[in-house]
Amino acid sequence: SEVKKIAVIAGDGIGPEVVREAEKVLKRTEELFGYRFETEHALFGGIAIDEKGTPLPEETLEVCKKADAVLLGAVGGPKWDNNPKELRPETGLLGIRKALGLFSNLRPAVVFDCLKDASTLKPEVLEGTDLIVVRELTGGIYFGEKFRRDSEQGQEAVDTCAYNVSEVERIVRQAFEIAGKRRKKLASVDKANVLETSRLWREVVNRVAPEYPDVELEHVLVDNCAMQLLRRPASFDVIVTENMFGDILSDEAAMLTGSIGMLSSASLGEGSFGLYEPVHGSAPDIAGQNKANPIATILSVALMFRMTFGYEDAADAIEKAVKDVLDAGHRTGDIAVDKTAAIGTDAMGDLIVAAM
Amino acid sequence: SEVKKIAVIAGDGIGPEVVREAEKVLKRTEELFGYRFETEHALFGGIAIDEKGTPLPEETLEVCKKADAVLLGAVGGPKWDNNPKELRPETGLLGIRKALGLFSNLRPAVVFDCLKDASTLKPEVLEGTDLIVVRELTGGIYFGEKFRRDSEQGQEAVDTCAYNVSEVERIVRQAFEIAGKRRKKLASVDKANVLETSRLWREVVNRVAPEYPDVELEHVLVDNCAMQLLRRPASFDVIVTENMFGDILSDEAAMLTGSIGMLSSASLGEGSFGLYEPVHGSAPDIAGQNKANPIATILSVALMFRMTFGYEDAADAIEKAVKDVLDAGHRTGDIAVDKTAAIGTDAMGDLIVAAM
Ligand SMILES: CC(C)[C@H](C(=O)O)[C@@H](O)C(=O)O
Ligand SMILES: CC(C)[C@H](C(=O)O)[C@@H](O)C(=O)O
Repeated sequence: SEVKKIAVIAGDGIGPEVVREAEKVLKRTEELFGYRFETEHALFGGIAIDEKGTPLPEETLEVCKKADAVLLGAVGGPKWDNNPKELRPETGLLGIRKALGLFSNLRPAVVFDCLKDASTLKPEVLEGTDLIVVRELTGGIYFGEKFRRDSEQGQEAVDTCAYNVSEVERIVRQAFEIAGKRRKKLASVDKANVLETSRLWREVVNRVAPEYPDVELEHVLVDNCAMQLLRRPASFDVIVTENMFGDILSDEAAMLTGSIGMLSSASLGEGSFGLYEPVHGSAPDIAGQNKANPIATILSVALMFRMTFGYEDAADAIEKAVKDVLDAGHRTGDIAVDKTAAIGTDAMGDLIVAAM
Repeated sequence: SEVKKIAVIAGDGIGPEVVREAEKVLKRTEELFGYRFETEHALFGGIAIDEKGTPLPEETLEVCKKADAVLLGAVGGPKWDNNPKELRPETGLLGIRKALGLFSNLRPAVVFDCLKDASTLKPEVLEGTDLIVVRELTGGIYFGEKFRRDSEQGQEAVDTCAYNVSEVERIVRQAFEIAGKRRKKLASVDKANVLETSRLWREVVNRVAPEYPDVELEHVLVDNCAMQLLRRPASFDVIVTENMFGDILSDEAAMLTGSIGMLSSASLGEGSFGLYEPVHGSAPDIAGQNKANPIATILSVALMFRMTFGYEDAADAIEKAVKDVLDAGHRTGDIAVDKTAAIGTDAMGDLIVAAM
């Protein structure tokens, strides 16, 4: 079969360790299913600042643009936290999203059976929780004009939040499509009682909705959504929202599952191109100690297979292997009840590869 | 003692019923403590739209401005939800905040003993949760310039988020003061890795912090805060943040206590003036049925006594009376385990008055 090009960005902290295990899964997929991958590594984030003087080197962008998909470990750490803006890992993250046109961030929040007690929510509330937050990723207040100016009350800072009809429509349509393939419920989250961008958002949603008659739509105000996620998480199927609200709500949703160390995410552009990464961060405190849990990154590969390559068989195999290894009782430190029995990053990766 | 003027805004839905019970408490306070109150009722919200053609009539504003404090029931309801912007209850709410200079919204989130099982969080996680969100209320994206314009990608909507140094400094100082009188921990929440207004916010916090050496300060990114509220609610003492983030986080914090029907809030301006209201909404579904729980509104009176009038004795008496009535097992429908034994709004008010 055709060779698929994957740009691999290990990044900072535990990034390199978890990505290494995900690459073992790529290799095993080639052996088992006959698919062929060509990986190219690229520097990004803190390590790119250290080695190239910028979080997003031009070469890295080139590698990504030539690729069919990107696999990202994690970026950032205290080392770069006090850098000026242009020398911070986050600036690279915003830059790569914009440069690759990744306008949609999909964050599935599911509860893993072996982790259902890890949530701070009561098990009976959590029961059946399986939702996905579709976050607009290249617009809104993240990318609007920002500046300082003098005012009579001291210096003033300004951020601009803008959305046009096309930007809203493409993400909303995608969310309707996704909902149509799931439980057919879409919650569109805005603050239409206050924001003009939200009123435009809601108008577009209402205009597009009749084209998806089988999807049940509700409009939820963002403050209410923050509450309802806590009160009735299982009632949500797909949540679609703008960039800033999505940042907050997707993290809230991930945390309430208790499974944050196991969740993967996809950032998609036009066509099938996508960037896949674990939801968890770079965890500098355990970096380089063979302690990190590689499952979220491995599941990001499964998501890539499903969403970018259409390799359903290989995606199924990975997800089943993860389930089997967990069912057999193997745990990395973060998810182990008995910490003394915890296995390392590499052992977890090897077990999953073997179970495929 | 000096007569205190209280503007009373019953509002919509259950507003009139819960405010009626709070007024009984005012009367009983006069008898017991010799304080004197003069109340003046004013129309606001949906009822003002119906009767005066505007959610915030000029007379109402005058009544509030002449008063020492405002007691508000609740506003809004489906009847007005599809009205044009200038004929919506929320527009009145934003208008009254701005017109009265209520720049600070205090939302204490505490767990009531009798309600600790009502939370969707595990009791052991909730244990000891007692935090207060200090939300900036008259700035940011709520009040910045809003408009539509044409673009090549269809119509574009724009909201502007602006903060100047004075606006940030007054709310931040207030939060430090409040923290100093509590457990001396302040979490300042922003999105300084993305927003210019957040970077200004953080600069001001860091400049002011050395003046409050006994308060332990942490900066928390808003997405992380949404997670940490779920993971370690009891570790927060005072959270200070800008308007939009405060809207979301204060609702999340309230919901996680499970006590949302019992929580009160204060919106404060310069000096001692304040507007006090329950956190819950107008609950149109149970309006006029003598089912609403008046406790949050009654506790809003206690908050008013404490924060605007300095009547600590009367505030203590109200809070103790509420506790005694609950300890004796009396419940309105919303908090009753055995719904058949639930008492009405008026009965709950009378019991609290009697217990004072
Ligand atoms: C690091 C930060 C800029 C980023 C964001 O806010 O988008 C992160 O929180 C995320 O959600 O990917
Ligand atoms: C009704 C709405 C405008 C208001 C707000 O967003 O401030 C409400 O949610 C609140 O928190 O008081």
